[in-house]
Amino acid sequence: MTIKDIAAYCGVSTSTVSRVLNDHPDVSPAVRDLVNQAIRACHYVPNNSARALVSSHSTAVGVVSRGLDNPFLSSLIRVLGREIHSRGYTMVLQQIPTQADEVKAAALLEREKKLLGVIFLGGRFNYTAEELRQLTVPFVCCTYTNIFGDLPRDAYSSVSIHDQNEAGKAVRYLVDHGHRRIAVLLDDPADNSIGQLRFQGYRQALAQCALEYDPALAVVTGDYAMNAAYDGVCRLIDSGAVFTALLAISDSLAIAAIKALTDRGLRVPEDCSVIAIDGLELSGYTVPTLTTLCQPAADMARESVMMLTELIEGTGSHRHRLMDTTLREGGSVARLESV
Amino acid sequence: MTIKDIAAYCGVSTSTVSRVLNDHPDVSPAVRDLVNQAIRACHYVPNNSARALVSSHSTAVGVVSRGLDNPFLSSLIRVLGREIHSRGYTMVLQQIPTQADEVKAAALLEREKKLLGVIFLGGRFNYTAEELRQLTVPFVCCTYTNIFGDLPRDAYSSVSIHDQNEAGKAVRYLVDHGHRRIAVLLDDPADNSIGQLRFQGYRQALAQCALEYDPALAVVTGDYAMNAAYDGVCRLIDSGAVFTALLAISDSLAIAAIKALTDRGLRVPEDCSVIAIDGLELSGYTVPTLTTLCQPAADMARESVMMLTELIEGTGSHRHRLMDTTLREGGSVARLESV
Repeated sequence: MTIKDIAAYCGVSTSTVSRVLNDHPDVSPAVRDLVNQAIRACHYVPNNSARALVSSHSTAVGVVSRGLDNPFLSSLIRVLGREIHSRGYTMVLQQIPTQADEVKAAALLEREKKLLGVIFLGGRFNYTAEELRQLTVPFVCCTYTNIFGDLPRDAYSSVSIHDQNEAGKAVRYLVDHGHRRIAVLLDDPADNSIGQLRFQGYRQALAQCALEYDPALAVVTGDYAMNAAYDGVCRLIDSGAVFTALLAISDSLAIAAIKALTDRGLRVPEDCSVIAIDGLELSGYTVPTLTTLCQPAADMARESVMMLTELIEGTGSHRHRLMDTTLREGGSVARLESV
Repeated sequence: MTIKDIAAYCGVSTSTVSRVLNDHPDVSPAVRDLVNQAIRACHYVPNNSARALVSSHSTAVGVVSRGLDNPFLSSLIRVLGREIHSRGYTMVLQQIPTQADEVKAAALLEREKKLLGVIFLGGRFNYTAEELRQLTVPFVCCTYTNIFGDLPRDAYSSVSIHDQNEAGKAVRYLVDHGHRRIAVLLDDPADNSIGQLRFQGYRQALAQCALEYDPALAVVTGDYAMNAAYDGVCRLIDSGAVFTALLAISDSLAIAAIKALTDRGLRVPEDCSVIAIDGLELSGYTVPTLTTLCQPAADMARESVMMLTELIEGTGSHRHRLMDTTLREGGSVARLESV
């Protein structure tokens, strides 16, 4: 089945079929419908490989996503796919475990798939300039920056929130609601990543509010596993530690924390308030609804694709964009009446 | 940087480097470590494209996943990726919206990426043999079968649960707990898909238990959006309908239902029991924990990859495998004391 067969089937020229296939405007709606019906009826599939050969360039953009269990990244991938496609590129997605090396994965993918550029999701914050020499195409860090690395700022682009400031906002929200003993639930305070930054933001905000940091109130889970978060919060409660509020550095950790508090007979928010950072759809349906600082996931994905395509097309240079979260007030934070 | 440079750097032969790169067993641990260190130090990336050209065949297996918002499919994709990789293939993943045509997407992908085979996730249940002629490589339907189509059973493989029977199991579990007025929450009773099958299973089980089907107790949301499920259950409650239990055909719909019941002042499970089918990790952390029939996601993914690679390698023929769910008893179903 070729373009000629479709043309013969419809009684039009091959160039008309080609115009329909390529969405050119100069085809009447009636002819367009006729050709599209024939394409469907004949199950004709345009041979894009051949087209790519003729035009002799790739349209592939790589998306390398680290962390397979992260629902926040899944929602970003959805928008990335749509945006990449709408700009005439194809998305080559590779999802790798948290332990894997995203730079190496991207370098391999670049060679295998002839990538024009790469968007990293959930990567490390500590790239070295030398290590990044493996990549010869432009790349954008989406949801993070290279704050712990030595990569020159004009050598890459990034779209992220200010993790420290946002964690500080969450702490101040709790303090404004009368809380003084605020626990924190995180993966690792020295992960050279989001955990470290948000933990720094937590401690800075405590200091700014003249509150002392109590190491006994830091629950470290090692990773983002919900069962580890659940167990960690149970242990915190069982230790007899006194706290009236908890900041979880992600929504999924917060959901596990609410479960642990509830299972131990503590009411959320009456006995303990919970706030998080992320803004998953699902945490809007927990009981109570999670109060959380929502990252602008769709905007971050759109901005990343725009930055990368501008770099590919030579119409833009490397930039760094910080975005703000939006507070979604749920039912998981209560005002402490007697302070 | 070539394999020769690595060999010179380490003072070993190129064939030794090659054996390390290809994970051959006949290299001493010390030499293996030395070569791997050099590979890391030099940021050497093996050129797999060149290797693929030399071996002159593709290793690409396509995974076409329909429905971008489905957390159940995300967990499957994770295992699929691992299994495909461990069998020496590469995964080419395409995620498409529910409205899109997965057969067309797969046919395009087959040509562009020289796929050896395709695994469909979350596809339609009503393929025609003619339509599937677009695909020239073997394919496996993962999580569903072609029960509403005319595809001969020896023309494709499938791994799925028996949707009707599993929905029936859920209804009988509620009946065994004393419930007689059982609502159902689903996307669409005529979707030619999971919704239709599970709805049929619900009605058949009611009939087998000598319970009458009441159309007023069927909440139809149109799709799997949580907000539509939430609104639908709120309307059911506001209508004054009498029911003591609810079967949601997916975990995410059930989570929205529990939220709606709670927000309307009904306690789960004391005032209304909720059961679902899927078994997401997250629904293990809702308050109360969701009682649900867990699909064996990892086993389904593994079996699908095994079937497909056997078809590709000519060591197996098309098969259809039905798997059982496992009941995870949470806290969302109560026994009705006075029946």
